[in-house]
Amino acid sequence: DVIIVTNKTTDTKEDYHNYLSSNGFNISLENIISSTEVIREYIIENFPSNKFFAIGEDKFIKSLDNHIVSYSDKPDEIDIVIVTLDRTLNFQKIEIAAKALERGAKFFAANIDDTCPVDNGEITDAGTVIPALEKRTGRKLEQHFGKPSQFMIDKILSRMKFPRNNYLLVGDRMQTDITMGKIMGVKTCLVKSGVKNKFTEYEFKPDFEVDSVYDLLSKTL
Amino acid sequence: DVIIVTNKTTDTKEDYHNYLSSNGFNISLENIISSTEVIREYIIENFPSNKFFAIGEDKFIKSLDNHIVSYSDKPDEIDIVIVTLDRTLNFQKIEIAAKALERGAKFFAANIDDTCPVDNGEITDAGTVIPALEKRTGRKLEQHFGKPSQFMIDKILSRMKFPRNNYLLVGDRMQTDITMGKIMGVKTCLVKSGVKNKFTEYEFKPDFEVDSVYDLLSKTL
Repeated sequence: DVIIVTNKTTDTKEDYHNYLSSNGFNISLENIISSTEVIREYIIENFPSNKFFAIGEDKFIKSLDNHIVSYSDKPDEIDIVIVTLDRTLNFQKIEIAAKALERGAKFFAANIDDTCPVDNGEITDAGTVIPALEKRTGRKLEQHFGKPSQFMIDKILSRMKFPRNNYLLVGDRMQTDITMGKIMGVKTCLVKSGVKNKFTEYEFKPDFEVDSVYDLLSKTL
Repeated sequence: DVIIVTNKTTDTKEDYHNYLSSNGFNISLENIISSTEVIREYIIENFPSNKFFAIGEDKFIKSLDNHIVSYSDKPDEIDIVIVTLDRTLNFQKIEIAAKALERGAKFFAANIDDTCPVDNGEITDAGTVIPALEKRTGRKLEQHFGKPSQFMIDKILSRMKFPRNNYLLVGDRMQTDITMGKIMGVKTCLVKSGVKNKFTEYEFKPDFEVDSVYDLLSKTL
């Protein structure tokens, strides 16, 4: 039983499903969990008829914008500010978010990763923008919905068919993946081919470490 | 004897001089000190033939770019990253700065103000971008050159004709203006019509407080 959990909000679940399928991984759409859907469900359930602004990309905004909650870029009418990965970030977006936060809008993040791994390194992610907005406004982030949040953990638990000691959490980021495994009480495996982790920041260690996903598969099979 | 000291880098000294003159303030160009000129002199003296990248506006970059040090936006050749106010900030600029810092470029700021006061509130300034880059890269800001840095203080001292107990430092920001006055050992006056100060962050108090510069002038004259 494999559950895929992602903090990446720049593609839809369907995109990730297609990508996995085309690489030979037959995982049901239901067993792919993204922070987009976790925050989407939370906001629709808890803040109906609210308006949100997002430092986030079009696909993320479109996933949330519907007849229950809707997108706005007018600080005077924004109830919720959401921060996530946004390669179209600019000064104007920071100012809209800051002015809404100064007026008292809720301060949420879809995920808290500092960076997002890409082919030639890492790029700026939500975790970089959050302290900027905190410094700019004097506000503090109130909630986030990706790994390792309780919202995400509850979603994962709802998908697990077996007791949790049957699962191994595999991830490349100490701050989100391995931390979540520790909170959930499942065994964890750190893959070292992804993001650069500053290990000294964490007092705990993953149960296993491998150099790459390939190594993990060759050891398991 | 009046010395004007500014952390604002979006206009040149000549612009400030013209602005003051047109409002009836006859202050010599030499007695106007900006963080642009302080960092400019430092870099030209200490890092000749280095290449800098700036999260900063065109006038700031043009002030620094000359035959001794020159501007580059190629992370592989950037020796110094400088952060200051930039209303044209975008994702690409953050990435260029981050990649240069990851390669070991020096990490400087012209100023460290969180926000810059404008007609209808405050806008994002260098102090907001610095923690973002720190989180993004794991690097720490190494030096800044505006108020209340020693570089700026030395520059001001070089302009003071009288003993420092003859001077009153007037400013609207606790973090930069009033802090610098305390460091310099001059009397300080906080003007409360500018930026919003979070007073609780500071254990010391300005010697005087006025609601506006107008109040200060009417009390003095």
